[in-house]
Amino acid sequence: VDILLHYIRKTFDEESKILDFHHPHQLLEGLDGFNLELSDQPEPLEQLLVDCRDTLKYGVKTGHPRFFNQLSSGLDMIGLAGEWLTATANTNMFTYEISPVFIVMEMILLKKMHEMIGWGETEADGIFSPGGSISNLYSILVARYKKFPEIKTKGMAVLPQIVLLVSEHSHYSIRKIAAVLGIGTDNVIEVKCDERGKMIPLELEENILRSKKMGLTPFCVSATAGTTVYGAFDPLNNIADVCERHNLWMHVDAAWGGGLLMSKKHSYKLHGIERANSVTWNPHKLMGVPLQCSVVLIREKGLLESCNQMCAEYLFQPDKHYDVGYDTGDKTIQCGRHVDIFKLWLMWKAKGTSGFEVQINTFMELADYLYKILKKKENFELVFDGEPELTNVCFWYIPPRLKSISNEYERQQELQKIAPKIKALMIEEGTTMVSYQPHGDKVNFFRMVFSNPATKQSDVDFLIDEIERLGRAL
Amino acid sequence: VDILLHYIRKTFDEESKILDFHHPHQLLEGLDGFNLELSDQPEPLEQLLVDCRDTLKYGVKTGHPRFFNQLSSGLDMIGLAGEWLTATANTNMFTYEISPVFIVMEMILLKKMHEMIGWGETEADGIFSPGGSISNLYSILVARYKKFPEIKTKGMAVLPQIVLLVSEHSHYSIRKIAAVLGIGTDNVIEVKCDERGKMIPLELEENILRSKKMGLTPFCVSATAGTTVYGAFDPLNNIADVCERHNLWMHVDAAWGGGLLMSKKHSYKLHGIERANSVTWNPHKLMGVPLQCSVVLIREKGLLESCNQMCAEYLFQPDKHYDVGYDTGDKTIQCGRHVDIFKLWLMWKAKGTSGFEVQINTFMELADYLYKILKKKENFELVFDGEPELTNVCFWYIPPRLKSISNEYERQQELQKIAPKIKALMIEEGTTMVSYQPHGDKVNFFRMVFSNPATKQSDVDFLIDEIERLGRAL
Repeated sequence: VDILLHYIRKTFDEESKILDFHHPHQLLEGLDGFNLELSDQPEPLEQLLVDCRDTLKYGVKTGHPRFFNQLSSGLDMIGLAGEWLTATANTNMFTYEISPVFIVMEMILLKKMHEMIGWGETEADGIFSPGGSISNLYSILVARYKKFPEIKTKGMAVLPQIVLLVSEHSHYSIRKIAAVLGIGTDNVIEVKCDERGKMIPLELEENILRSKKMGLTPFCVSATAGTTVYGAFDPLNNIADVCERHNLWMHVDAAWGGGLLMSKKHSYKLHGIERANSVTWNPHKLMGVPLQCSVVLIREKGLLESCNQMCAEYLFQPDKHYDVGYDTGDKTIQCGRHVDIFKLWLMWKAKGTSGFEVQINTFMELADYLYKILKKKENFELVFDGEPELTNVCFWYIPPRLKSISNEYERQQELQKIAPKIKALMIEEGTTMVSYQPHGDKVNFFRMVFSNPATKQSDVDFLIDEIERLGRAL
Repeated sequence: VDILLHYIRKTFDEESKILDFHHPHQLLEGLDGFNLELSDQPEPLEQLLVDCRDTLKYGVKTGHPRFFNQLSSGLDMIGLAGEWLTATANTNMFTYEISPVFIVMEMILLKKMHEMIGWGETEADGIFSPGGSISNLYSILVARYKKFPEIKTKGMAVLPQIVLLVSEHSHYSIRKIAAVLGIGTDNVIEVKCDERGKMIPLELEENILRSKKMGLTPFCVSATAGTTVYGAFDPLNNIADVCERHNLWMHVDAAWGGGLLMSKKHSYKLHGIERANSVTWNPHKLMGVPLQCSVVLIREKGLLESCNQMCAEYLFQPDKHYDVGYDTGDKTIQCGRHVDIFKLWLMWKAKGTSGFEVQINTFMELADYLYKILKKKENFELVFDGEPELTNVCFWYIPPRLKSISNEYERQQELQKIAPKIKALMIEEGTTMVSYQPHGDKVNFFRMVFSNPATKQSDVDFLIDEIERLGRAL
């Protein structure tokens, strides 16, 4: 515990290094007494403690105020306490029998989140799952089952050629899911977005009509509330109109943007989400809950269970002495299921809805602060204009040398190499971490996101200075 | 931390109650100051501490020496420390970039487990996943892809009618997976077992031939090494022969029985596993690692990646400055992935292979001890005869009253009600927990399993006495 507390103190110290980078082969070969190989014989406790210290030493401090690399960052102390208690309880969500408290907490949180979505009085359903991709998988699975219940027993052989529609900026997990479910990635139609990365409803409708004309059967649209790279919100109400007209299941992947529902100031960006049939929402992202904490919410009660139920007699005995309607295991595609609920429940108790709201509003202010600075800075260029709708800010750093390149193609070729080089230097020096990627026809740019409660304005200033310092001579 | 340590001490005290049972509606209404509802406003720290204490108080002590309810039980202190460190590090397995140490640990453990399976020199592959069902899903997914790589892009529409084969005692997750993957549960052929619950290879071959004659295309056999209820091992070598003859993918679901590979004395029961194409193995079961810790091991390297790869540019940038072959995220159906490896790695360091071996041999001795006692006891009847091959012991308790019922049907009807009644009393009193279920034509019986390192012979004696005490008057 002392080792862990020491690490936590260092994590929050902005002057400490985020990481002490070593290449994979260096770790494999063993570093200065840190040998990862396993032997047949036990090792003494002192060695284990050294190993624990080294594991943290050579890892990445994702709670560091200058760690901006992923949508999940930060280290909430209440959430951490919740996770420690969860580990100590070491139980499993499949039955009320061995998880009475956690099952009831899950029910309460599902209800709370339904209210925030705006499903109000309907008795909505859902399940916490091991991450956003699996939550999205549940949605598409249930959407398919709703339209074609025979899929469960007969398989795809008895279905027409089904297709689903997403935006070209949607998360790659939807394509993965199509491969897993036996739909095939070719049957995922990618709908064009506007320059902000929002799905164009007219394009959506045209794609639906075109696919029908080709003899295909659209069954589901997966809209995104908060895209991974741009942080864009699809126009949910317009998409809901299209879905209603064509009788399609509407899923909203709000894994990243769902957190804005906690903010009275920003929740309007998700207007129309109450018309969705299913929603993915990851509290481990914008709400800062420790990994993993993701939920899929389904509007129609009972669908999840009838889709996935197998009635395994060794777990879900109908003759138990309590109301077995509380056993959740027959709703899931898992059997055993990790307890991800307690840390969220405890954080909610500790912060209240209002506490999450303050935190999320602060992230938005930081994004706005960064956006306004970059707009003015000469060596930085924004990937698209307009105030941030979520905490994503996408930009290039343009080293002075590139300004003299007049050939645009050549300039882009050079610009493509800049972000990776700066990132490599950041990692080598361990001062900050921010992600980069190309996107569509845009060459490598930085994607800054705010989801770390430890981050302050001065850390934003630091990031800009650091990129300039590392990139100037490139 | 004090609350947690106090709980741990109580967990290991065999005189303490395993649980303080309340019905769902009681928990929902709130118990003696324990209110699970969430509000908009934050609550003070003192209240949170009370809530933590109550959460543990009204939960189930799965580490209690007399908790025998699930295949996962016990509370290993080193594993727990590993989980606390994991929570503190709060990172994600998708890239080496943010999980360098954990990624290398995963590689080392995959290699170690391949060696134990006997795949030896081949460069085998695998991934840790959120539970045995998902691990089994990976296997069937990869099996299908290996035979029909076009499935990834085109979907099931371009495939013949595929079927997979399992034993009638196999885990229900295989049927769930068939539903998820779009194969359909009707296309899961259940092969007959002998009285010990082992798949009959002749029946397997007959089923394959019959399905081919019907125009179906078998592609995979999922054998089981340690069935959930009986603890049976399918005859792997005979099944491998059949698979080779018909060119089928052989998966072994060793989620439960895989642990025996750690024991020189018992590993012979899995002979033939080295001929499998894929194996599921859950260290969170027999090896006592805290939940969740499950792995799927794939013999042919690269298959997992080509099956699941989507090359998301925002995560798996090819122009990173380290060897991106170490990024694991493109092998998985998840995007973010919880760190399940460290606790296993730390436990292995602490115990060595030899420590796991001793622990598992002890479980087997306890099972044998229970079996021998029950064989002699007048009021108990074994579900099948023969020494336990795994730690499962299945039995009925026969109250004196039932002996006078001469009509066999009537006697079975009464016997069906006995185990649930005894179980309900156990839970009400909180003295011990053991699972029961019907199976095939067998009415409700108890399934005892040993996977809890805290359990001693005296706890086995206690269980028998307790069942007699609670059941005598029924």
